[in-house]
Amino acid sequence: MKGLKIAIIGGGSSYTPEIIEGFIKRKSELPVNEIYLVDIKEGEEKLNIVGNLARRMIKKAGLDINLVLTLDRREALKNADFVTTQFRVGGLEARARDERFPLKYNVLGQETVGPGGFAKALRTIPVILDICKDMKELCPDAWLINFTNPSGLVTEAVTKYTNIKCIGLCNVPIHMKMDVASMLEVESKELFIEFVGLNHLVWGRRVWHKDEDVTENIIKSLQDGASLTMKNISDLKWPAEFLNALGMIPCPYHRYYYMTDRLLKEEKESAEANGKGTRAEQVQKIEEKLFELYKDESLNVKPVELEKRGGAYYSDAAVSLISSIYNDKKEIHTVNVKNNGIIKGIPDDCIIETNCIVGSKGATPLSLTGELEGKVLGLIQIVKSYEILAVESAVTGNREKAIMALTNNPLIPSIDVAIKLFDEILVINKEYLPQFR
Amino acid sequence: MKGLKIAIIGGGSSYTPEIIEGFIKRKSELPVNEIYLVDIKEGEEKLNIVGNLARRMIKKAGLDINLVLTLDRREALKNADFVTTQFRVGGLEARARDERFPLKYNVLGQETVGPGGFAKALRTIPVILDICKDMKELCPDAWLINFTNPSGLVTEAVTKYTNIKCIGLCNVPIHMKMDVASMLEVESKELFIEFVGLNHLVWGRRVWHKDEDVTENIIKSLQDGASLTMKNISDLKWPAEFLNALGMIPCPYHRYYYMTDRLLKEEKESAEANGKGTRAEQVQKIEEKLFELYKDESLNVKPVELEKRGGAYYSDAAVSLISSIYNDKKEIHTVNVKNNGIIKGIPDDCIIETNCIVGSKGATPLSLTGELEGKVLGLIQIVKSYEILAVESAVTGNREKAIMALTNNPLIPSIDVAIKLFDEILVINKEYLPQFR
Amino acid sequence: MKGLKIAIIGGGSSYTPEIIEGFIKRKSELPVNEIYLVDIKEGEEKLNIVGNLARRMIKKAGLDINLVLTLDRREALKNADFVTTQFRVGGLEARARDERFPLKYNVLGQETVGPGGFAKALRTIPVILDICKDMKELCPDAWLINFTNPSGLVTEAVTKYTNIKCIGLCNVPIHMKMDVASMLEVESKELFIEFVGLNHLVWGRRVWHKDEDVTENIIKSLQDGASLTMKNISDLKWPAEFLNALGMIPCPYHRYYYMTDRLLKEEKESAEANGKGTRAEQVQKIEEKLFELYKDESLNVKPVELEKRGGAYYSDAAVSLISSIYNDKKEIHTVNVKNNGIIKGIPDDCIIETNCIVGSKGATPLSLTGELEGKVLGLIQIVKSYEILAVESAVTGNREKAIMALTNNPLIPSIDVAIKLFDEILVINKEYLPQFR
Amino acid sequence: MKGLKIAIIGGGSSYTPEIIEGFIKRKSELPVNEIYLVDIKEGEEKLNIVGNLARRMIKKAGLDINLVLTLDRREALKNADFVTTQFRVGGLEARARDERFPLKYNVLGQETVGPGGFAKALRTIPVILDICKDMKELCPDAWLINFTNPSGLVTEAVTKYTNIKCIGLCNVPIHMKMDVASMLEVESKELFIEFVGLNHLVWGRRVWHKDEDVTENIIKSLQDGASLTMKNISDLKWPAEFLNALGMIPCPYHRYYYMTDRLLKEEKESAEANGKGTRAEQVQKIEEKLFELYKDESLNVKPVELEKRGGAYYSDAAVSLISSIYNDKKEIHTVNVKNNGIIKGIPDDCIIETNCIVGSKGATPLSLTGELEGKVLGLIQIVKSYEILAVESAVTGNREKAIMALTNNPLIPSIDVAIKLFDEILVINKEYLPQFR
Repeated sequence: MKGLKIAIIGGGSSYTPEIIEGFIKRKSELPVNEIYLVDIKEGEEKLNIVGNLARRMIKKAGLDINLVLTLDRREALKNADFVTTQFRVGGLEARARDERFPLKYNVLGQETVGPGGFAKALRTIPVILDICKDMKELCPDAWLINFTNPSGLVTEAVTKYTNIKCIGLCNVPIHMKMDVASMLEVESKELFIEFVGLNHLVWGRRVWHKDEDVTENIIKSLQDGASLTMKNISDLKWPAEFLNALGMIPCPYHRYYYMTDRLLKEEKESAEANGKGTRAEQVQKIEEKLFELYKDESLNVKPVELEKRGGAYYSDAAVSLISSIYNDKKEIHTVNVKNNGIIKGIPDDCIIETNCIVGSKGATPLSLTGELEGKVLGLIQIVKSYEILAVESAVTGNREKAIMALTNNPLIPSIDVAIKLFDEILVINKEYLPQFR
Repeated sequence: MKGLKIAIIGGGSSYTPEIIEGFIKRKSELPVNEIYLVDIKEGEEKLNIVGNLARRMIKKAGLDINLVLTLDRREALKNADFVTTQFRVGGLEARARDERFPLKYNVLGQETVGPGGFAKALRTIPVILDICKDMKELCPDAWLINFTNPSGLVTEAVTKYTNIKCIGLCNVPIHMKMDVASMLEVESKELFIEFVGLNHLVWGRRVWHKDEDVTENIIKSLQDGASLTMKNISDLKWPAEFLNALGMIPCPYHRYYYMTDRLLKEEKESAEANGKGTRAEQVQKIEEKLFELYKDESLNVKPVELEKRGGAYYSDAAVSLISSIYNDKKEIHTVNVKNNGIIKGIPDDCIIETNCIVGSKGATPLSLTGELEGKVLGLIQIVKSYEILAVESAVTGNREKAIMALTNNPLIPSIDVAIKLFDEILVINKEYLPQFR
Repeated sequence: MKGLKIAIIGGGSSYTPEIIEGFIKRKSELPVNEIYLVDIKEGEEKLNIVGNLARRMIKKAGLDINLVLTLDRREALKNADFVTTQFRVGGLEARARDERFPLKYNVLGQETVGPGGFAKALRTIPVILDICKDMKELCPDAWLINFTNPSGLVTEAVTKYTNIKCIGLCNVPIHMKMDVASMLEVESKELFIEFVGLNHLVWGRRVWHKDEDVTENIIKSLQDGASLTMKNISDLKWPAEFLNALGMIPCPYHRYYYMTDRLLKEEKESAEANGKGTRAEQVQKIEEKLFELYKDESLNVKPVELEKRGGAYYSDAAVSLISSIYNDKKEIHTVNVKNNGIIKGIPDDCIIETNCIVGSKGATPLSLTGELEGKVLGLIQIVKSYEILAVESAVTGNREKAIMALTNNPLIPSIDVAIKLFDEILVINKEYLPQFR
Repeated sequence: MKGLKIAIIGGGSSYTPEIIEGFIKRKSELPVNEIYLVDIKEGEEKLNIVGNLARRMIKKAGLDINLVLTLDRREALKNADFVTTQFRVGGLEARARDERFPLKYNVLGQETVGPGGFAKALRTIPVILDICKDMKELCPDAWLINFTNPSGLVTEAVTKYTNIKCIGLCNVPIHMKMDVASMLEVESKELFIEFVGLNHLVWGRRVWHKDEDVTENIIKSLQDGASLTMKNISDLKWPAEFLNALGMIPCPYHRYYYMTDRLLKEEKESAEANGKGTRAEQVQKIEEKLFELYKDESLNVKPVELEKRGGAYYSDAAVSLISSIYNDKKEIHTVNVKNNGIIKGIPDDCIIETNCIVGSKGATPLSLTGELEGKVLGLIQIVKSYEILAVESAVTGNREKAIMALTNNPLIPSIDVAIKLFDEILVINKEYLPQFR
């Protein structure tokens, strides 16, 4: 039996031990025999450090996998079976800029939503399309498992502009499921959450434990102070009556839309001279420590410190998805796929985040239990309007579409601010935005 | 652990050994401890015969199930966990009439499609709604697994007019899957068929063996003479170029729509004085023999002769569905459920037949791989127009809706004939159509 | 002020006096100064006869219009402002074949519906696309007013495959409105009929006289024997209870769908050796007489005998439409335009027949009074499925699409017959179907 | 011929001379013989003043109209043919509160959009439903022409919860058309503007002068400083490149959504101790002066000073609409009607503002020229989500729906603020919100 070749784009990421651990855990079901970690010249040092740790992990696990570290993306892609992406165009420096520059306009700075997420999409989409161009030539049947943020937008660009088989992935849904399981003190596999929305704008619309609808219980727990958030998002508590009115479980990122004022205040304090810095700046420090750890030749497992970095469940999200495809498991995963009529009132060909059956043919969305409620649909619709325009703008370099994208982004308060933000994005990302030249 | 109570309405049917066998096969996963076979006074003799066989089968299997034969439907329903229906209002005599009376107008006589199926819907729907009324009182949380034909129409009546949890079932899709598996000489579980359409009007839109699209192979096999039909439908071969043009796998019942002339000719020959009789008349003879067999006290398994009767895979279709619900298996079953946007251009609340994930919350349809092709959509749409009107007419006893229903049925050539057919339906089913009085 | 140039394709038609009369009637609102009657070589003699009559009519009316008779289509199109089409590919001989050949399969033979209409679409669509190609070059801003049948299909081909501004026209709606006006003994301009459907499949969904809904009155009149038909369609009476059930006014052509059996019987009788011939054969005789009349140098008005030919109201339908465009009148006309969401459940880009506001920007459909009833929607949907496939097949010469088109046509009883009909269409129209070679 | 009875609810409004003038202008086409001005006890003085002016205007015009001033709404409604509404629950004092209270949360205070418009909807909807209840009894066939703001929400409440024939009216579209006509220096009747959106959120999607698309010209004029606004909205100029990107004509109220920051700043300055007061406060002063003027017994025409008040074109909008209904004119008016599929992605039964043909059957929307662009659809969708929830909340007094309504309002930055705003609305409108008690 032919072994699988995996290409990990952005292999020098501090997250790499997560995904390597994922392959190790699933060794009995996934016959991987080649893993290519590929990165760019600027990331070579980190690639070597994390690559060596990965090698030690594989060795410790007693696996016969040929791990290759390379700067040659085409070599990595050639005949690959699965391509995963965890690269970050412009690195944490670019992210730090994304998080800071909107603050002066009283707009949230965040990696994936608002103007920061828009800037990231503009930088990332040309690169992913370039990867897809190579894939078409070098591994046309491979699956692209996209983890690079903003995952929904990047996946939408791939599915609209290429024929590469692609599933977009995010660890938010699995995170929510784990948090809900611990609130209920049950096994996560006994839960079914009807996830629906867009990437980083996904609701747990209803929650069942076995055949019992426990949505109200979760809402009660949240009202009683239970935590449902992620490392990079403040655990601001939801007003009790808002949760009652919503009647669903918001995702951690919903705070950016629903508690914009509180988070902006917090971000501005962090960003001040004596503040704790933006999230990217904090992560830079964590990463430095992580890479110090990774250098330790005696380390041959994923260090627990990685969890602080924020990628929890990344391995489960990504490798179990790959296994479900490879083994035609027809398991339910919450992923980013074409809407295809699931959410009414937005186009069929745009990307949503929802529950899918995943098998060898890819991800097939499950129908919702009745039409989506207007109380959340409006927000999905305007954010999707933003996303569609953002993708078009990122692909074509069209300035007018960029302005209309930002105009439709609910975090941006006016067209004046939208234009200023876009002008600043162009300046501070100059080297990464060839499409706008 | 509480054992399950199963109520089988129409328990005196010759099919009962099928479903009993299903429970026996799945004894390890379904803790059934009570099965009620319920029938009406007229069916008492058959109920006793088949009930005794069922008892012997259970005993042979070494199971501890309390099997109750009863004419008291309310006793059977009380606290039931699953209710299955296999009753036939008016018995085979009514079916024989359904099959004969349209022939004089040069219209197909068939149990589930055309004017015969319409008559059957008119007889059956008031009864199923009455059962649901009892269920609401006696076992409001039970699942109704409807096998009574016309299964799509009956299920649509239940879901539109009651709150009972109901899934409509038919053995056509599983039959097609089995036939396709034997054409390809593979295990049926390695196949995925994208089934879509209405009950008895379902297409295998695409067929995958593992991750390979083998639709073309199946079409080729059918062109080379492979058989894909059921006991009650002539194995008329599809014109090769029609199959190419269709590009999908038609179901056996499609012959009524696509080969109306050939089947009508055949039916008329069978119905002639010296012919072999209509299907119901043939079945009557088979049934007589079956019940003779069933009386044999030494028989304690399902006799092979039952297969001739036509219910093959009924047990798999029904009991595996029950198990998937009970055990929250999230398996894929092809069942009759609310459309909910899956097929565009027909209402959300009407019943379609399609692939669903089945678990403790019921059946959730899978999204289609792209919008349904116009070349089959038109037929679905006009048949669904017929069905919607038929259900309304059956529930309300509205004559105008009945006439418009038949007018929309593609097997009925004119409004003159539609009116004559309806008038004759009223006459020959007089005692079974209280709603039209 | 610049005068208008009108190009009439198929100018040798016996209908030409109708349209010439239309321009004469509206001389004060339409400054026509050139009319080109263009025809093909085979039609030259008729072109000269009818052209000379037209010249005498114009002279009598005292108009200063330059009437040009020509076989050079490009000369006619050059700088035209309006192009109208009344050509008939293959002439009445082809129509006669369309009407006869299906009868042997027990299928209706008709010029615009069923297999005859399909054959006509296959012959006509390549020619209209060729005309549009010339228009793009010679008069890109001209309006194409298509009267050539099957008008809906021909218009759909133009709007899907060219950028020419096109409105499809038919005299059925205006005919119905006139008949309804005479039933009610009121002025037609006081009526508003909500027309909706497809060409030759259009219903008068509701009828208002001023602000009063008089739909029931019309239904009553029809039940009492009032006539609502056209010269070429037998005035078969509608069953009273069908009209009640329908609750709308059927168009004359609905008889082909709703009374298929009666009309087929009638057609077969007419087609017999001693019968009165098919409609085309009758028309051939009428036409001969008409052209004899037209030759009379003393005739200088439209002869009353033309009405027998069947084109009543053609002039009103066509020239008043042209005037509404030219003068931006924003009048309501019932024409063939893109669906654009008016009828739900069929594609946006297909052609429907419905009420529109007509002005200088073209025809804009009026919204319906609530969603279209299922009792008629199903028939529209399956006929539209047929039409979409028919247009694709006519444009591409794709045999499979042709077979699926006929399979979806409700007048064709089986795929066997569909294939035979198509094979015969290819044979008897050999010289007119280059796309299938 | 029977004369018409008009009932004007809120007849004591300073706008009354506008509508009276409208009836005088159209005396030849509208045989009005009774006008009832009805108001509440608190408005009696104003009613008498403006009523006497109205009487003098009618007398001067030489009309034989019986003008009745009354506090008895039922007397006014009895057998009315048209009912118009221009009442204001809580008067200008309530409006002043609506404009002020949001400012402390850094949220825009405005009469019809944002939290102020929401408060007004909560106060107004119970009253309009009460009027409809009376109409059902006293004049069930009368038309309700609703001018009371927020006109879209009020009309949606009427059409969803009553059977009264109702058209919602606003002078924004006619204002825009007049401004566009003066930019182009053409007659407004030669223009066609494709208006689409919601009330106070309506775009001029394309503008034609005769058959020429002049949208770009208008955009150019706006970029060159042309004015397109209304008395109550600052004439803030649109950024040139935003207009290019938008490609449509925004309505004056769009500034609240697109220039939120600039308008908020301006409002806060006006509201300061030494500022010019909120718009309501300014209007209070204007009104005082107006009523002083109205008292002048020698005044017998609409005084020019009324224009400053802001109701320009109200008479044209309202009375020409009444005439188009009464005379079945089938003119195009831009009004508030059921969506019915015109804007995709929002429900059929919600109210939109768009071009309609208006005749004796009411208002029938015109189809759009192609699907609405995503760049404006998202904003429509989220505002409509807000509106649907706002109407439900206003009718039912449901607090959770109110909170979700405000959460969906794009002018409200967070759920914390939404809850605070709602709590304050309840307090400051206590006497007007019986539904929330």
